[in-house]
Amino acid sequence: MSFAPMSMAVALAHRAIALSDPNPRVGCVITAPDGQVLGQGHTQQAGGPHAEVMALRDAQARGLSVKGATAWVTLEPCAHHGRTPPCADALVREGLARVVVALHDPNPLVAGQGTARLRAAGIEVVELPPDAPEAVAARELNIGFLSRMVRKRPWVRVKMAASLDGRTALPDGRSQWITQEAARLDGHDWRARATAVLTGIGTVLADDPRLDVRSREVPRQPLRVVMDRQWRTPLHAAVLREPERALVIGLQADALAEPEAHARHTALAAAGVPTLALPALTWPDVLAALAERGVNELHVEAGATLTGSLIASGLADEWLVYLAPKLLGAGRGFADLPALAALDQAPTMAWHSVALVGADLRLLARCPGAADF
Amino acid sequence: MSFAPMSMAVALAHRAIALSDPNPRVGCVITAPDGQVLGQGHTQQAGGPHAEVMALRDAQARGLSVKGATAWVTLEPCAHHGRTPPCADALVREGLARVVVALHDPNPLVAGQGTARLRAAGIEVVELPPDAPEAVAARELNIGFLSRMVRKRPWVRVKMAASLDGRTALPDGRSQWITQEAARLDGHDWRARATAVLTGIGTVLADDPRLDVRSREVPRQPLRVVMDRQWRTPLHAAVLREPERALVIGLQADALAEPEAHARHTALAAAGVPTLALPALTWPDVLAALAERGVNELHVEAGATLTGSLIASGLADEWLVYLAPKLLGAGRGFADLPALAALDQAPTMAWHSVALVGADLRLLARCPGAADF
Repeated sequence: MSFAPMSMAVALAHRAIALSDPNPRVGCVITAPDGQVLGQGHTQQAGGPHAEVMALRDAQARGLSVKGATAWVTLEPCAHHGRTPPCADALVREGLARVVVALHDPNPLVAGQGTARLRAAGIEVVELPPDAPEAVAARELNIGFLSRMVRKRPWVRVKMAASLDGRTALPDGRSQWITQEAARLDGHDWRARATAVLTGIGTVLADDPRLDVRSREVPRQPLRVVMDRQWRTPLHAAVLREPERALVIGLQADALAEPEAHARHTALAAAGVPTLALPALTWPDVLAALAERGVNELHVEAGATLTGSLIASGLADEWLVYLAPKLLGAGRGFADLPALAALDQAPTMAWHSVALVGADLRLLARCPGAADF
Repeated sequence: MSFAPMSMAVALAHRAIALSDPNPRVGCVITAPDGQVLGQGHTQQAGGPHAEVMALRDAQARGLSVKGATAWVTLEPCAHHGRTPPCADALVREGLARVVVALHDPNPLVAGQGTARLRAAGIEVVELPPDAPEAVAARELNIGFLSRMVRKRPWVRVKMAASLDGRTALPDGRSQWITQEAARLDGHDWRARATAVLTGIGTVLADDPRLDVRSREVPRQPLRVVMDRQWRTPLHAAVLREPERALVIGLQADALAEPEAHARHTALAAAGVPTLALPALTWPDVLAALAERGVNELHVEAGATLTGSLIASGLADEWLVYLAPKLLGAGRGFADLPALAALDQAPTMAWHSVALVGADLRLLARCPGAADF
């Protein structure tokens, strides 16, 4: 059996990047028994139609009947009434004969009920083996969604850019530009993939970055999250340009009991900036809170202190590193880590992919086993 | 015209690695007009037969006539009486009809005279365009020989191994092992390619490395060179295991006038260790002296001080870097470089190749323009 239409569905699913969050990125292709493509679609913004409905509407708009047709869906169709009616029901109602699914949906509201409902209605359901290239691609595209569903925390990607000797800036802090334009734009594309971009108050105060996507037009900018224990984010900070697309996370105690911090917290809230006051700023708590807010992929772009603390926590799933072919000698480092008592205590990943991006290398290293959930 | 036999000749030339130094690595294939391979060979040890003679002998041993045949040679045949008679004459004498040459020999003793002698004898000579893959491969294989001929200095490759954040050891110096076995063996293969492996006295005293090739059997170990200003290399140092295959380079003034250094220098010489006393240990002088001693490729494997000084001199042609997917945080760095006044003063290379070697990445970065000679 050829899965060719599934490759097309995966390609469609990619169009849901920077659009469907917190919903998964799903593509759907409907084919006639002779292989003709009758309709295609991908998940729209949250609350909008899912991929299956978009594909059914596409066929309808073209005046084509889908009776007896096959739907190729990158993720198990939903079976529950969320913000939209169940897609499984729509496929049954329209009389499809067969549904091919690339990936099982671990969402407890779906988890096998989608395919069960289809089968109960007499539709043939085919599930791709987990190692089929289309299944692997569909999973990789939704690694954040799956992480949030299964692990109750986002998929955490830590972005770093440095010289070959791991320097992110000269000793005086100058860092523009170690890597080149192409690497910076590529980094924006990774920001676009994420539901949220997270940084620390140190970076906000020192560099005032926007942390948005400027490499291409995106339907929605990622949420910009600032780890800001004492609520020091200035109201004019560039990360707050779209206040409703920001989130400042700080200490509850400071917001309540420390007068100046309280005043700053109040001012942020008054300016329309969402805030999250936590009893403690531990990474498990922060990541759980972000998952509750629908963050699938978390892109971390911060200074050595925050980066080091996240990596040392063991909760960074992968490192996205841009490496310039130069040596700086002295300078600031990637990550401030606790002193190691032995070499085998060093945080260790596995190389996942390498690409030349302009004059720089892009390295992706993944925590062994992190994606096995 | 197909150059297929030249690919075979290039493959043969690779067999001259760790064998033919200081002579170039050359392969030769002799084919009949119908394409049959009549003979093949590669350069032997210095003073031994060159590739063309090996191929002619091979044909003879098989009882095959090479009259009217084509010789495919990766480097222009020599035209001078060195330790062996001119190969051009042998090809003429045996009655070959055509010689295809991948690479022009810049050796002033050859430099066009080889092909001129062939043409004068009525042999058709075909030279590959410089961008033909076989020509590029033949050149790359002899980058050190060509560098010595043209630039009067070796091709200098600096080997480094570090964590992703550029740490070569913990702050206390522990460094075994940051990269893994596969990377270390791969590094040995690069040592084997080099005529000489160079290190500093600091590394000799701290780590006592052998700096030889233990990844595979090699016809000859590289020369091991120690930069040792004050002649402090211990007689029992591992780099001196084969004293005649070592070279200690130090300061002439110390060897002559400083009593203790003089005694150490004398002891080294008495132990059969070749020494080279220079008026000043500047990199141009050291590299010129090594070229005079027939060093084609120089493999540098040293500590941060020597590595930094060589890179800062601008005379490192490429960096060979093994990068482990881990972060050490604090620790020793790649290279001690002078403080940079601005980012654009950083020593900068261009990424040349990347490979996964076991769990580590092997990065090759080359100085832009360094190979254009």
